[in-house]
Amino acid sequence: HGAKMSKAAGCRGFLHHVFDYETAKTLVIPHFGVGIVFRFTQLLVVLYVVGYVCVVQKGYQETDSVISTVTTKVKGFAYTNTSDMDPRMWDVADYVIPPQGDSSFFILTNLVVTPEQTQSHCPELPNPSTVCKDDCDCIEGYNDPRRNGIRTGLCENFSTTVKTCEVFSWCPLEVDTRLPKKALLAAAENFTVLIKNSITYPKFNFHGRNILPHVNSSYLAHCEFNRLTDPDCPIFRLKRIISEAEADFQEMAVKGGILGILIDWSCDLDWWAGKCLPKYSFRRLDSQNQDNDVAPGYNFRFAKFYKRADGVEERTLIKAYGIRFEVIVFGTVRPKQILKSSVPIVADWVMLTCMRKRDLYTKEKVTYLVESPDSEPVSDHCSEARYSEVSCMCCSCS
Amino acid sequence: HGAKMSKAAGCRGFLHHVFDYETAKTLVIPHFGVGIVFRFTQLLVVLYVVGYVCVVQKGYQETDSVISTVTTKVKGFAYTNTSDMDPRMWDVADYVIPPQGDSSFFILTNLVVTPEQTQSHCPELPNPSTVCKDDCDCIEGYNDPRRNGIRTGLCENFSTTVKTCEVFSWCPLEVDTRLPKKALLAAAENFTVLIKNSITYPKFNFHGRNILPHVNSSYLAHCEFNRLTDPDCPIFRLKRIISEAEADFQEMAVKGGILGILIDWSCDLDWWAGKCLPKYSFRRLDSQNQDNDVAPGYNFRFAKFYKRADGVEERTLIKAYGIRFEVIVFGTVRPKQILKSSVPIVADWVMLTCMRKRDLYTKEKVTYLVESPDSEPVSDHCSEARYSEVSCMCCSCS
Amino acid sequence: HGAKMSKAAGCRGFLHHVFDYETAKTLVIPHFGVGIVFRFTQLLVVLYVVGYVCVVQKGYQETDSVISTVTTKVKGFAYTNTSDMDPRMWDVADYVIPPQGDSSFFILTNLVVTPEQTQSHCPELPNPSTVCKDDCDCIEGYNDPRRNGIRTGLCENFSTTVKTCEVFSWCPLEVDTRLPKKALLAAAENFTVLIKNSITYPKFNFHGRNILPHVNSSYLAHCEFNRLTDPDCPIFRLKRIISEAEADFQEMAVKGGILGILIDWSCDLDWWAGKCLPKYSFRRLDSQNQDNDVAPGYNFRFAKFYKRADGVEERTLIKAYGIRFEVIVFGTVRPKQILKSSVPIVADWVMLTCMRKRDLYTKEKVTYLVESPDSEPVSDHCSEARYSEVSCMCCSCS
Repeated sequence: HGAKMSKAAGCRGFLHHVFDYETAKTLVIPHFGVGIVFRFTQLLVVLYVVGYVCVVQKGYQETDSVISTVTTKVKGFAYTNTSDMDPRMWDVADYVIPPQGDSSFFILTNLVVTPEQTQSHCPELPNPSTVCKDDCDCIEGYNDPRRNGIRTGLCENFSTTVKTCEVFSWCPLEVDTRLPKKALLAAAENFTVLIKNSITYPKFNFHGRNILPHVNSSYLAHCEFNRLTDPDCPIFRLKRIISEAEADFQEMAVKGGILGILIDWSCDLDWWAGKCLPKYSFRRLDSQNQDNDVAPGYNFRFAKFYKRADGVEERTLIKAYGIRFEVIVFGTVRPKQILKSSVPIVADWVMLTCMRKRDLYTKEKVTYLVESPDSEPVSDHCSEARYSEVSCMCCSCS
Repeated sequence: HGAKMSKAAGCRGFLHHVFDYETAKTLVIPHFGVGIVFRFTQLLVVLYVVGYVCVVQKGYQETDSVISTVTTKVKGFAYTNTSDMDPRMWDVADYVIPPQGDSSFFILTNLVVTPEQTQSHCPELPNPSTVCKDDCDCIEGYNDPRRNGIRTGLCENFSTTVKTCEVFSWCPLEVDTRLPKKALLAAAENFTVLIKNSITYPKFNFHGRNILPHVNSSYLAHCEFNRLTDPDCPIFRLKRIISEAEADFQEMAVKGGILGILIDWSCDLDWWAGKCLPKYSFRRLDSQNQDNDVAPGYNFRFAKFYKRADGVEERTLIKAYGIRFEVIVFGTVRPKQILKSSVPIVADWVMLTCMRKRDLYTKEKVTYLVESPDSEPVSDHCSEARYSEVSCMCCSCS
Repeated sequence: HGAKMSKAAGCRGFLHHVFDYETAKTLVIPHFGVGIVFRFTQLLVVLYVVGYVCVVQKGYQETDSVISTVTTKVKGFAYTNTSDMDPRMWDVADYVIPPQGDSSFFILTNLVVTPEQTQSHCPELPNPSTVCKDDCDCIEGYNDPRRNGIRTGLCENFSTTVKTCEVFSWCPLEVDTRLPKKALLAAAENFTVLIKNSITYPKFNFHGRNILPHVNSSYLAHCEFNRLTDPDCPIFRLKRIISEAEADFQEMAVKGGILGILIDWSCDLDWWAGKCLPKYSFRRLDSQNQDNDVAPGYNFRFAKFYKRADGVEERTLIKAYGIRFEVIVFGTVRPKQILKSSVPIVADWVMLTCMRKRDLYTKEKVTYLVESPDSEPVSDHCSEARYSEVSCMCCSCS
């Protein structure tokens, strides 16, 4: 009978076979105790999901990304008195660019100023490709994007010893090799910045601020962030945050750089998980690898435009070196990861270990295969813990 | 025989036990009807995934985040005529900062102007720590970052009654306590802003715009967003969006604030899900909690630099109060969540409820354990619906 | 006995039934060979997860989004000599707005200049609603936000033939219909931009830069991005990236537009996956649909403020047309998706196909249901591959 059956099975064509339906075998145990554990665990999860997550947090979503707004306000001033420049006071309107207090702001620490530029003619800076002997070396209209202007075709005295081709450009040309070795606004290390950050997880309708509820105005008027003593103060001294990023302010101030102020709002919104608080970290974002970098540090050029009494437009070109601070807010919420997979694990564990009749349940749930084809399969009295899943879960929690 | 076997099983050492292999038991039902339902459901899903998702949407991904670009264009002008200032017309080049029409823009509504500042000497503003009797009270070079400049060591008349220490700074100093109680540019409530937003879900190759296909130029020339009557118009009157955020324009205009214009592009890209349309919402983002806030509202300082005929640099310092609008675009797509888990549920349901031989299938699929260890386990004729999963799914849809 | 049992089962009430516990039936096979394959596969995954992912990458997370910083530096200059304007050299301080080298920067390519505006009175531009015959047509104080200023109540000569209402505004008024047909800074197509991009996947502690380790300074000094010959060079010629986005520079330069420079850092951080490298793509982001668009292209107004010798504030209003470049960095990592589901599949496949006693294992694992209720269920000797899952996985890889 069995042989005929297996032969029949063997003959069944592929087409027929395709329409077989494969489904998992299940065991139903009508034991009130195990059932109540199973249902109770399930009920807890359902109640939690429906009651807390859906009603209180108004959303049931697996994950959500943060929406954030940041304002920044720098305080401090610097006084400079160098041979290159008149004595000068620098305040926020001078050194914060752009001034709006966005999440990204730049603090000027060093600069090359080229005042009183006008659209006119002047000899180029000396350089193997610009030095000339007479006008024949200078092709009129020649226009190299890596140079400074359009050649007029004349060869002029750059200094008493060197002649270079004359160009039409904003003259006099900038000489950006005269960058001060010590940052002009070295005093900027003592400037402070107040960072206000509000966040929302829209799917969970969760709102947070980095100015925590227990913090009051009088504390904020005088505090300064310190990871150990004042971890909740949103006012940061520039020197401290740069040293937290393992960089040196004075070294960064000369050639400029980019510093990330990272605010991590990742958190678990389950009610037992405690408050959702911001975690600050600081990281230098520009490359410090001198080998494969162009234009190391951070600088840019801008100009202040003036009009002379005779109507001629004049500008002061500023090559600004400094530190760009970027407040980067990130975070995801990902609740109930462990909870969902807990229901069958708990009920199985109770059934297979705690119940008086655990041997019977185990026998029916687990078929223990014996090698001899004659013998009946027997059940094993001990089920392996799903340790691999558990170990993965532990790992994912860290 | 059974006893020997169970004894042998008991003696098996841990090491051996570790290499047991545990696998789910399955039941194969060679019924053409059930099989065809099973395969047909599977085929539909595969065809959908391969045909629509992989070919039409050119991507099969579980989730994707939006990439967005926003341009904004403010229209309107205001006329001011106060005792502090000459009559003046304000247009976009005056009150929109920065002018570029980015996703974040600031509209000036109130300001404290300090014109004709130069680098010079002037007495500090009176204050317990700045009032002096004679020069001995003013230490030369003293430099408090919370004050306004470097002390020259002189004690000068601030007014006829008060003497304060003289500082070197941008003089005259700003007196920012004279902020108008009623916003200077109160008329800004009638300004409008056109928001153009294009988005992409790169993995799905989906593109969208907030100017919908059915909207034409003549409508756009005159429409104004209204949640009820014109929900698709991308032109927003400032007063309206601030009132939608449950704030008051005139109150915000005095001290400034931040308003989020949220555009939610979350959608289901399955073909039956309808069009993927933007949903606008508005939310005040700066804190209104007076208790634990520093510098409530939103303001920043910037300067316009001039050069006098005698070559001296002069600036007009402006402490600008106003409303920063942030267009925040967010969204994720997460298709086919329900679809994937539907195949076995549908086939199981058909098999266990609709088929003529459902009792046989149920008997083989489901072993119903009976308490007495002697009796054979029997099958239950009715399988519980996977209601907990279903309830979770329902919840997740809302 | 069976009948009594089934009757008892039928009578069992709903409440009792609810507390039945349903669990999957499993088969344990104490075969050393299969077990070792099972455990070995599992061990590999656990070792990989614990060793490489948790220790080397310091995080085990399912997915993570990129955190990025971008700096840009434009090079090049343009010379203009048109009838409207004096000959002029344009350098970065003139045409890059804002100048800071952020991820979003604007390059001026065309402009309408309105010099020497002051707060004064002038007749409006002729237009059906502004033309007047005498002062009665002009209501004093009338203030239409779509017009240019506040009416003074006078009707003045705009030209020798047309009279219009006089307004108080920044006068003379801008005539923005005189936009050059050929972009003024057509030469901007040869400007280059250096893009420096550093990224971090914080949960994986992975850092990357678009200047790759094998790229050196001398190469960077002269290279230019080309998808075929120089795909790693981070210096882009504007003309090329616009043509890669299937747009035309000269056409975009006239009315302006927005161009996205997309850097995709999506990658698999599994160690065998090779390096995580940036992929560049370029896409025009502003709409080119003329039918339902307002203000096509991209432009904004800004002003340069001057002070005359007599103290009157004067401004040069510039309506700037140009191309806004947005460097958009995106990416997610999603490792080990396939790995996790591989353990049972590999072990099942080995067990059911490679083992000598595969028939026995198959018989116990898979119950093959026979139609006749009398016959014993038999096992099938061949298990279907989980082809649907596999096909989905393949699809998801593409």
